[in-house]
Amino acid sequence: MAGGKGERFWPLSRQTRPKQLLSLIGGRTLLHQAVERLNGLIPPERIFIITNRDLAVPIRELELGVPAEQVVGEPVGRDTAAAICVGSALIQARDPDGVFCVLTADHVIGPTPIFQRTLAAALELAAGANVLVTLGIRPTSPSTGYGYIEAGAADQEVAGITFHRALRFVEKPDRETAARYLASGLFYWNSGMFVWSAQAFRAALARHRPALAELTERVRARLPREPIEAILADEYPKLEKISIDYALMERADNIVVCRGEFQWDDVGSWPALEGHVPADADGNHVIGECAAVGATGNIVVASNHLVALVGVKDLVVVHTDGATLVCARDRAQDVKQIVERLRADGRHNHLL
Amino acid sequence: MAGGKGERFWPLSRQTRPKQLLSLIGGRTLLHQAVERLNGLIPPERIFIITNRDLAVPIRELELGVPAEQVVGEPVGRDTAAAICVGSALIQARDPDGVFCVLTADHVIGPTPIFQRTLAAALELAAGANVLVTLGIRPTSPSTGYGYIEAGAADQEVAGITFHRALRFVEKPDRETAARYLASGLFYWNSGMFVWSAQAFRAALARHRPALAELTERVRARLPREPIEAILADEYPKLEKISIDYALMERADNIVVCRGEFQWDDVGSWPALEGHVPADADGNHVIGECAAVGATGNIVVASNHLVALVGVKDLVVVHTDGATLVCARDRAQDVKQIVERLRADGRHNHLL
Repeated sequence: MAGGKGERFWPLSRQTRPKQLLSLIGGRTLLHQAVERLNGLIPPERIFIITNRDLAVPIRELELGVPAEQVVGEPVGRDTAAAICVGSALIQARDPDGVFCVLTADHVIGPTPIFQRTLAAALELAAGANVLVTLGIRPTSPSTGYGYIEAGAADQEVAGITFHRALRFVEKPDRETAARYLASGLFYWNSGMFVWSAQAFRAALARHRPALAELTERVRARLPREPIEAILADEYPKLEKISIDYALMERADNIVVCRGEFQWDDVGSWPALEGHVPADADGNHVIGECAAVGATGNIVVASNHLVALVGVKDLVVVHTDGATLVCARDRAQDVKQIVERLRADGRHNHLL
Repeated sequence: MAGGKGERFWPLSRQTRPKQLLSLIGGRTLLHQAVERLNGLIPPERIFIITNRDLAVPIRELELGVPAEQVVGEPVGRDTAAAICVGSALIQARDPDGVFCVLTADHVIGPTPIFQRTLAAALELAAGANVLVTLGIRPTSPSTGYGYIEAGAADQEVAGITFHRALRFVEKPDRETAARYLASGLFYWNSGMFVWSAQAFRAALARHRPALAELTERVRARLPREPIEAILADEYPKLEKISIDYALMERADNIVVCRGEFQWDDVGSWPALEGHVPADADGNHVIGECAAVGATGNIVVASNHLVALVGVKDLVVVHTDGATLVCARDRAQDVKQIVERLRADGRHNHLL
């Protein structure tokens, strides 16, 4: 899934260059890293990238090794449930009994060997049972930015990885609740990554969201004769927007959560860089060139440009060719409002 | 006097483009405005511009109407006393009994008619008496950023302008003292602008700073045979750095302060722009393009570039091609430290 708009990373992310196409962390784009992370476990020929129509061409140009026709541009955004149904149809068209994983393109994950070991175990489990596996992450802090999954008792171990029955999905909690979750040891972060067989997915959809089961079947049936993007141009406009969590994960009773022990960060907004960019001598997290006098705790991103900070703290400063953002760290969620305002004002030069 | 380095206006001001050569306020450079302000009172042929060597060529290129040879570049900075002595020598060489005014190139002053009326009265007074006239400004706020002059009783009026004997010069006061000064009605801001006859200046120097009197005489004597800049290359390196306030104004007993009723602002640092750039709908003072969400009380300067502010207040944000400053308003004096650090680090590309 590589359809994120990444408006929270404006002005670096733009309509045709959202977060998954930025190289802020790890030297290459997050999408590159997402594909490379599967190296040796899932060959690029077996990867489908579902993105939005504007991004299909730029993504094909990244030369990820994924066949061009497996980069699918959605005509309009219909949230994760629709995107996963499309992926499922594409996979079923190739193998009705296929087992597949749904992965994110814009998260920071590592180390790769632990991630791959976890994913391999989940694929093994999903291949042999009518379960929906979700990759849970063992929390390392009482984060209020993630959803959580409550796990039941450990019920099985596959290839050294522990899997629990999932009891419930909970939305982003407040700080106190998150601390309780962390202390209990029974809650996992919901990474938004899933593993299941086409069969199990089909059955769960048929029970909990028949309209989406029918969509999947219609897409699958037309695939031998029509290009996928023509099919989506027909089907998507009439779909409702719904997330897979809401459509399926919060309803199904055959969900299994695995205990992911790898590092995982969805890099939700600018302050998340702090965890990936070590502080300099002044205590600022800098990508680029910065001079600071009495300034600390700031996050600075610039390229071929000097950012000078005097007497400021806890700011995010991002310089790009056409625009510079200066944002209070604790207001980083509101960067989207700048994007909305620019769109409303027709200042598209700062969005494209 | 146009020799200021204007480091407090970095990154817009640079070594070869200090404050007096910026067009932040009033549409033209402050130096342009300083020359135009004399229009009708003092013709450009009678104006000498004393600046530093690096700025002489850029200033000549401004086409101010001042003859090229009357733009004098000092080989090294020796503060205001030396610069005024050089000006005095140049004027005496033309007219030993000349009356002249010493004006600043980087202040915002207006309206011009009131300024000219004041200056004309001061010139008239100085032409007929052995006094050193200093242009005092009637304070409009308890500023702690200016020096003050304590005035004695009103002792004369010339052409409708009031002049007092000056009792003492005081350094920048604290807030409480400044408030007392303001309330008393007996204190004026020291604008650093002076009017006197060459004769009165010569006599005062001879008494209080004989070394500078001798410098002036040596420069005057060599002028018929040598170019001014060659003379200064000889004389300047051995001079001490001293301000005219310290050399003369705090010592002489024949100082008269005039009651300046015009607006005057020395535009000491970025926050001074607030008084000259009206606030926009969000309460920010913007030169250029700005988008703000929950941000107010900021000063923004940018050209052909969008500055987006989210959740910040009381900042100065200045974007230029190579560098961007983000500074707490109450720390604007420390911008000089950035300049010092860049110089120490040899990052001259950000200074030139």
